Amino acid sequence: MPLLFRKVKELRNHLKGLKCDRDKPVSVGLVPTMGYLHEGHKALIRESLLQNDITVVSIYVNPTQFGPNEDYQRYPRDLQRDMAICEDLGVDVVFAPTDEEMYPLGFSTEVYVKGLSEVLEGKFRPGHFKGVTTIVLKLINVVSPDRLYMGEKDYQQLKIVERMVKDLLLPVEVVPVKTVREPDGLACSSRNVYLSEEERKSALSIYKSFLLAQELINKGIKDAKTLRQKMEEFIRSFPLVRKIDYIAFTDKDLNPKIEVEKGDRILVALWVGNTRLVDNWEVS
Amino acid sequence: MPLLFRKVKELRNHLKGLKCDRDKPVSVGLVPTMGYLHEGHKALIRESLLQNDITVVSIYVNPTQFGPNEDYQRYPRDLQRDMAICEDLGVDVVFAPTDEEMYPLGFSTEVYVKGLSEVLEGKFRPGHFKGVTTIVLKLINVVSPDRLYMGEKDYQQLKIVERMVKDLLLPVEVVPVKTVREPDGLACSSRNVYLSEEERKSALSIYKSFLLAQELINKGIKDAKTLRQKMEEFIRSFPLVRKIDYIAFTDKDLNPKIEVEKGDRILVALWVGNTRLVDNWEVS
Repeated sequence: MPLLFRKVKELRNHLKGLKCDRDKPVSVGLVPTMGYLHEGHKALIRESLLQNDITVVSIYVNPTQFGPNEDYQRYPRDLQRDMAICEDLGVDVVFAPTDEEMYPLGFSTEVYVKGLSEVLEGKFRPGHFKGVTTIVLKLINVVSPDRLYMGEKDYQQLKIVERMVKDLLLPVEVVPVKTVREPDGLACSSRNVYLSEEERKSALSIYKSFLLAQELINKGIKDAKTLRQKMEEFIRSFPLVRKIDYIAFTDKDLNPKIEVEKGDRILVALWVGNTRLVDNWEVS
Repeated sequence: MPLLFRKVKELRNHLKGLKCDRDKPVSVGLVPTMGYLHEGHKALIRESLLQNDITVVSIYVNPTQFGPNEDYQRYPRDLQRDMAICEDLGVDVVFAPTDEEMYPLGFSTEVYVKGLSEVLEGKFRPGHFKGVTTIVLKLINVVSPDRLYMGEKDYQQLKIVERMVKDLLLPVEVVPVKTVREPDGLACSSRNVYLSEEERKSALSIYKSFLLAQELINKGIKDAKTLRQKMEEFIRSFPLVRKIDYIAFTDKDLNPKIEVEKGDRILVALWVGNTRLVDNWEVS
């Protein structure tokens, strides 16, 4: 079983001990998660296990990255299951702090990446990325990892954390890991458990719309406006898609594109019933 | 001569080398300054030298903590003189980065302590503390010190950095150091060089008003309103005091006080000619 820590001090003491124990420097990988681990998380963890002596998985449903009308309360949680998964994979340490530990009384510090936090998800989830950058920085400060593993599934989050790490001169390498998909193409997400069988079929519209767009691009259609229109039309043909928040075409740094080319990203956020799904695609 | 580093990577490599060289953990103290070192800085440095194996003094006039109409351009700078002072004291490392090194192209991350950054100095210098917390965090991330030395002269800054360190779970101890005063009572500040001989006499009104207030408190006058009135009247009797920004009475955590008691703080900011001065006093 991995060692489970609930307190910052205890985790820090443990890691300090490990680092001093050995003759050569001990490398530490951090995989920050909100738990309810799925194949996407497992890919992050496996990458960390390969590249580091010690892998720390943090499990914390961070309240400050949820909006007032979002799914903080119903977000799935199952620490026992997560611990078993971590054990199977060979994780060394699980850090599952309490809210009191992460947000002590009087907490009032925010970390914010301007610009990048305001577009796409930022427009629909105001304050979300401020919550993300603040908690990720805190986790980095607690663990002092050499490498930080983040999935490309939340591509904007990845780019924002990369920016923060660079701007704040944090001595950590951000390692992006490719999105893991279910056999049918749906991107792995803890929120997929919200979907009914019927909703799941409509959720697949996202992945299928990426395939459609890629096909059109392969045929020489590069105009973002046309591609967006085709994708939107296609997605709307799925009965349970309630609302499309955005279909965006950007370069790899999230700058909007008019002509789409290899290496660009297509990003989609939409609602299936009461579930909001995000996904993205690297144009090849 | 202390080692002088201009680049983050080089400093980091040097410190990493030191930490691995020895058998037992090497402690590092960081004294962040904007240079033009005076007796106040020297007190911080001496404290760090006493408490740590390695003392790093950073010298960087941080542009983001100056407002558009403030004294960034004319702020005094003299690296050669600072290096000589550091040598005399026995400082190990001076870190004097370039702007390009601290704020690379595309920089867009801010660190902000809500509440505390908005009162007192925050009202008169909007954005100032955001600049301070961001640069201090970056310096902490570069040096990874065990202890951080800050003067009580900029008391609000000290309290804000303490809050940030606590909130962000930074593994560093903030060590406050008492304000150092010139023989006549004027608090040491790099900005004192701006003062003409005549202005300096009026600048002393601050220190003398603290003595007056303390005397009144000793006599049993504890009402902040009365004390403020007496101090203001006294300060205004100095001919070159152009404007009083505030005279404030707070507890040690900067909460406003109505009845003043031991351990509280009196904080003053005022203009003498074109020079803005801040100082504070611990009620005894």
